Amino acid sequence: MRRDRLFLAATLTAVFSADLYFILLPKLRSISQGSGHSCSCGPHNLSLPRQGGLATPRLSNWTSVPPEEGVILEPADAGGSKLERLFADPLYNIQIPVVGPEERLLQVEQLMEYYRKKVSRWERHMKIYSEAAAISNITVTEHEVSFDPDASWLKFHLGINRYALYSRDDPAVPQLLKDMQNMAVISADYTQDEKALKGACDCSQVVKPSGHHLKLALKMRNFAKAMFKPMRQQRDVETPEDFFYFVDFQRHNAEIAAFHLDRILDFRRVPPVAGRLVNVSGEVLQVTHNEDLRAVFFTSPANNTCFFAKCLYVCKTEYAVCGSPDLLEGSLSAYLPGLSIAPRISIPNPWIRSYTFTGREEWEVNPFYCDTIKQMYPYNSGNRLLNIIDMSIFDFLIGNMDRHHYEIFTKFGDEGFLLHLDNARGFGRHSQDEMSILAPLSQCCMIKRSTLLRLQLLVRPEYRLSDVMRESLDADPLRPILTEPHLSALDRRLQKVLRAVQRCIRRLGEDEVITNDFEPCFIFSFQLWS
Amino acid sequence: MRRDRLFLAATLTAVFSADLYFILLPKLRSISQGSGHSCSCGPHNLSLPRQGGLATPRLSNWTSVPPEEGVILEPADAGGSKLERLFADPLYNIQIPVVGPEERLLQVEQLMEYYRKKVSRWERHMKIYSEAAAISNITVTEHEVSFDPDASWLKFHLGINRYALYSRDDPAVPQLLKDMQNMAVISADYTQDEKALKGACDCSQVVKPSGHHLKLALKMRNFAKAMFKPMRQQRDVETPEDFFYFVDFQRHNAEIAAFHLDRILDFRRVPPVAGRLVNVSGEVLQVTHNEDLRAVFFTSPANNTCFFAKCLYVCKTEYAVCGSPDLLEGSLSAYLPGLSIAPRISIPNPWIRSYTFTGREEWEVNPFYCDTIKQMYPYNSGNRLLNIIDMSIFDFLIGNMDRHHYEIFTKFGDEGFLLHLDNARGFGRHSQDEMSILAPLSQCCMIKRSTLLRLQLLVRPEYRLSDVMRESLDADPLRPILTEPHLSALDRRLQKVLRAVQRCIRRLGEDEVITNDFEPCFIFSFQLWS
Repeated sequence: MRRDRLFLAATLTAVFSADLYFILLPKLRSISQGSGHSCSCGPHNLSLPRQGGLATPRLSNWTSVPPEEGVILEPADAGGSKLERLFADPLYNIQIPVVGPEERLLQVEQLMEYYRKKVSRWERHMKIYSEAAAISNITVTEHEVSFDPDASWLKFHLGINRYALYSRDDPAVPQLLKDMQNMAVISADYTQDEKALKGACDCSQVVKPSGHHLKLALKMRNFAKAMFKPMRQQRDVETPEDFFYFVDFQRHNAEIAAFHLDRILDFRRVPPVAGRLVNVSGEVLQVTHNEDLRAVFFTSPANNTCFFAKCLYVCKTEYAVCGSPDLLEGSLSAYLPGLSIAPRISIPNPWIRSYTFTGREEWEVNPFYCDTIKQMYPYNSGNRLLNIIDMSIFDFLIGNMDRHHYEIFTKFGDEGFLLHLDNARGFGRHSQDEMSILAPLSQCCMIKRSTLLRLQLLVRPEYRLSDVMRESLDADPLRPILTEPHLSALDRRLQKVLRAVQRCIRRLGEDEVITNDFEPCFIFSFQLWS
Repeated sequence: MRRDRLFLAATLTAVFSADLYFILLPKLRSISQGSGHSCSCGPHNLSLPRQGGLATPRLSNWTSVPPEEGVILEPADAGGSKLERLFADPLYNIQIPVVGPEERLLQVEQLMEYYRKKVSRWERHMKIYSEAAAISNITVTEHEVSFDPDASWLKFHLGINRYALYSRDDPAVPQLLKDMQNMAVISADYTQDEKALKGACDCSQVVKPSGHHLKLALKMRNFAKAMFKPMRQQRDVETPEDFFYFVDFQRHNAEIAAFHLDRILDFRRVPPVAGRLVNVSGEVLQVTHNEDLRAVFFTSPANNTCFFAKCLYVCKTEYAVCGSPDLLEGSLSAYLPGLSIAPRISIPNPWIRSYTFTGREEWEVNPFYCDTIKQMYPYNSGNRLLNIIDMSIFDFLIGNMDRHHYEIFTKFGDEGFLLHLDNARGFGRHSQDEMSILAPLSQCCMIKRSTLLRLQLLVRPEYRLSDVMRESLDADPLRPILTEPHLSALDRRLQKVLRAVQRCIRRLGEDEVITNDFEPCFIFSFQLWS
């Protein structure tokens, strides 16, 4: 009789719990979403901006769907892909002039010649190495290699121009992502940074070496090169509140998510990044020709294959990363063209942080810091300061406090775009919005109209940044890339960026704050803060 | 109407969930426990062992309740304190001979003289230091200090004899625990180990320095000294499966729990350990006279007071521990008498592990390893090997793989008991029972009768190891010290120890396996495996 009661109670509870969970809770949620706050963007009344100005141009030989004037938006709850609808929006389909050869980073012939030399050097090296390995009894997996002049990574390199790393609809980018996800790895090595350290720990600097030392350069069968950053922690681990930004771990998923966000913001200043389950035995240990790298591999007590950072090893094997038993998640970031054919310069961020425990930089204490910067070369003319502000918005959204330097391609001079490299310290704390990252925006009170328009688009329910990010990230094999709290944080932070702009406009007026990088006849209204 | 339905459903669910959780589930549990396996110990048929032999004696001047012969046990589900019932069991109340002066570690006069010298040296130092500090503008908190000849720590030192660190009912031990929990700290410093390293990292050794470097020596107002090990991780964090035992973090709660377990097993070979919320500003930073220690303090981004391991600092501030904002949990272990009056020797454990990635020690590959050990001094006579086996049972229960050395007091010679110091690497993984720790027992097939009897007692539902441990640990201010999975692991592991003994008896017979450290007339039957 007691057991009957038990059974009855359990059944009833199960039925009611299911009802509560699957029917009533979702309804509750939709009620609260329908009646709650959320963004109050007005109707879509943006007319298509004309070509020219500082808007990002489209390369002449790339195909794209010509956008229609006054395109009618689907309602917020319409089915289908929000991401596709976003990319079909007029703002993402601006007609732009042809890019001249001088505006491209590389010329085809020059690049082909450079890579042919690289390939023949590799082939000579392989011949000598195989002989030496046979003598020393080292087994090295040898893969079929082929130099393909149509390879996606070559097309990516050729597509880089003075406006962005790639065009919106360049088919080479999805192909490059696929190649990084699947293609056979033929060799693995330390990165150049690592080699420059020569295995020594530069411990006199607090900033530099910490955590960096597990990234590796992988070479694919078609000679594509990618930087591999292995997973160091689970996605739901939050950075402890006592950690300084400069000792935080690097996160492979942040690297992947940053690429997707940069593309959604239409900056296109982050090289393509794909997630991959790397076999650390077959795709690193067995294909490396570097004795030092081979020496840091070991088998863990749980029989997993692990490797550790050489610099830190002597004291701390805790820093090792391990496969399961050989497979290890990681991010693969496409390499940019070599520095010898496409030199870049690295410039300290004017809003750099103090990399000490107690130090404060001038921008942290002087509210008029931007006035000084505005008078200094190269921030006193052109786009540079606006680009820094774009970067600060990007960093605020991902929560990256570690942007001490930025890089630009030397070829494009002061008007070149800023590369957003090394984003692995983003997405550390979903619950914290570090307002100091937005200092360039809030102190200078300037923003490109094109950037602002896209941010306003992404706050609208029919696109909603978290939704398009979720959808975009879902294409990665390591999905889910971000946890839901991190996705929600993007929406919350986006609102804060827009509020910062609104405060500037209230203080200084629209004309002072919004810089037209479109034609002046472009019609625009700030419904958001009317 | 929909909201009504929602409300009704929510109420019903809440009622049924509460019913399920608080009434039916506990019933279900008790039903399954009643009918399930669990230990099948027979009735309590142990007669009181007589005095003498190698049983632990009671000091003549200590009071204790004389146990009655044939004491009747309360039923398993009786209320009240299981721990008190355990300590009232005849096995824990063996009448023992008077301990002669030569069997005590220290003589009263000798110890008092030694400490009076220490105190006057401290007072001289304080005078000089205060003057120097005033000149250098260093603020040092000065506390009233007093040397109390009745202090609990002095009584603890005086109570150490050739059988154990303290007697079962010594009132000095609970008083010492209280003092360590509450008494004002008058100075803080690195430990001697630390000072021997002189701040240098001995990174050539993989084993030694890792993680050790945050322990500090604290001095109390009455000159008691305790070793402070700060909390490094939350109690529910499990040691990753890929960690080697020698790189695992030290756990302050393991240090506390090990003291309680050792007392419950009646070994009394672990010095008293208490938990304490230490104010790292007021009780460390402001009272230290060591410049090096002062220099490793900093304020974290979350405004907490933190300090880091000097040796590891240069590269890794991740190793810092932080208060909240100043209060930090830690274990305080009572110091043993100084080496100059009570020298100890440190002896490699015959079942030492290889402290390398791939190395294997002989005992791991040779099943007849114990035969060799049995013929070697000092394991070829007396109690030493049985003591090692006791220690392996203790280490197996706490899951400590890091017992590379053991210490004994020189004064007691080869028959002295083994000190179970440094237990902070126990309780790392509740889900794993590392059978290799039991190798001394399973390879030698020997156990003291007194140890076995207590283990058999602790497996019985009326005592149950996890229950008495939970109760004992509940007296610590940092309760809960162990999570429930760790407590359950103790019961499971205890069963495994008894099964290992059972296997030995099946193979070799009781007489070979069980060593009588009681009078031979002691009646005992192995109901557990009959």
